[in-house]
Amino acid sequence: MAEISIPVEVRERIIIESGAMFGKYGIRSMTMDALAEEMGISKRTIYERFKDKDTLLLEVIRYFKTRTTEEAHAIIEESSNAIEAMFRIMKMTISQIEQMNPAFFNDFKKYHARVYKQLAGPGEIRDFSITLKILETGVEQKVFRNDIHIDIVNRTLHTLFGLFGHEDNLLQPKYHRREMFEHIIIPYYRGISTPKGQALLEEFKGILD
Amino acid sequence: MAEISIPVEVRERIIIESGAMFGKYGIRSMTMDALAEEMGISKRTIYERFKDKDTLLLEVIRYFKTRTTEEAHAIIEESSNAIEAMFRIMKMTISQIEQMNPAFFNDFKKYHARVYKQLAGPGEIRDFSITLKILETGVEQKVFRNDIHIDIVNRTLHTLFGLFGHEDNLLQPKYHRREMFEHIIIPYYRGISTPKGQALLEEFKGILD
Repeated sequence: MAEISIPVEVRERIIIESGAMFGKYGIRSMTMDALAEEMGISKRTIYERFKDKDTLLLEVIRYFKTRTTEEAHAIIEESSNAIEAMFRIMKMTISQIEQMNPAFFNDFKKYHARVYKQLAGPGEIRDFSITLKILETGVEQKVFRNDIHIDIVNRTLHTLFGLFGHEDNLLQPKYHRREMFEHIIIPYYRGISTPKGQALLEEFKGILD
Repeated sequence: MAEISIPVEVRERIIIESGAMFGKYGIRSMTMDALAEEMGISKRTIYERFKDKDTLLLEVIRYFKTRTTEEAHAIIEESSNAIEAMFRIMKMTISQIEQMNPAFFNDFKKYHARVYKQLAGPGEIRDFSITLKILETGVEQKVFRNDIHIDIVNRTLHTLFGLFGHEDNLLQPKYHRREMFEHIIIPYYRGISTPKGQALLEEFKGILD
């Protein structure tokens, strides 16, 4: 690891490396001491920038969320249509989640409930802007019906996505992600699509296999 | 009100009349004294059959739920197709809810949380059997696609219906029932329908206006 001396870069490096370690080993097992040791810096260097672990965790999550949002918007730009973009973004999100140690989510809810709660509101973890952009783009491209109420549809999508995230709902943990996706998300998308969009759904849904 | 002397009928009369009064005035304002007075019976006659108000409330709700389920199954039998049945049952349910004093729901959650919790599980208030029957009938009639996963779709429908019931979700109280229905429930139904079913959705959705 190269020596980094400009403060703003130290800050970013701490965020990126802590995030990678939280994702790999969970949050609880990575104490501030362990983080400092792994990064080859002093604990003081961390505490000068983040007053406690909750603050560091919050910054880590916001940082990665911002990166994901940027990437998602780039995918929307590059994709030939809104349906393709939607599937590619889902694939990216699923793969990010699958690469993470389940301990991360467990520790997050259990030991950092304050941060968890702070991030649960709209606009934080749930990024309505990505799906909003997909919906608007899709209506313009005539792949989504022009009579959809974009805000209600957007909120409904996030409610349906929410079914994948926690086990206190009617579907988890009874079914696997793949079948839930096929029978929950796809039908709703089909229902808001034009015939052109419905054909694209069939064409692109294989991306997720 | 005619004199009724057979015990089982007294029991049923208490359930029916208490239910009507709870629905009209709320639960809290109808004390056991008030119920007895309104029915022209002694409080002891009630307590001989129901050990407390929670027990009476539980029996009232189960009784009306059973009636609703019977009515729903009769509607399914009478309707020319599953989509018509689904809309007619929704119309019945919405009108039942709208006829009730909002105090009923508020009192129920606030002052009878134990009963509320007991009834919140699958198979109690949420009647999966009605929607299950509609889905099975619809697949048979080729109005719903034959590739739908009936149990996942059924649970998803109940999750979506759940959005109408409480205010701690992403959509309530921002939107009215009618627009939520149009942009949440209809698209999901459209997504699980065949072209024949989609045409029926357009034909019957006016029933709810």
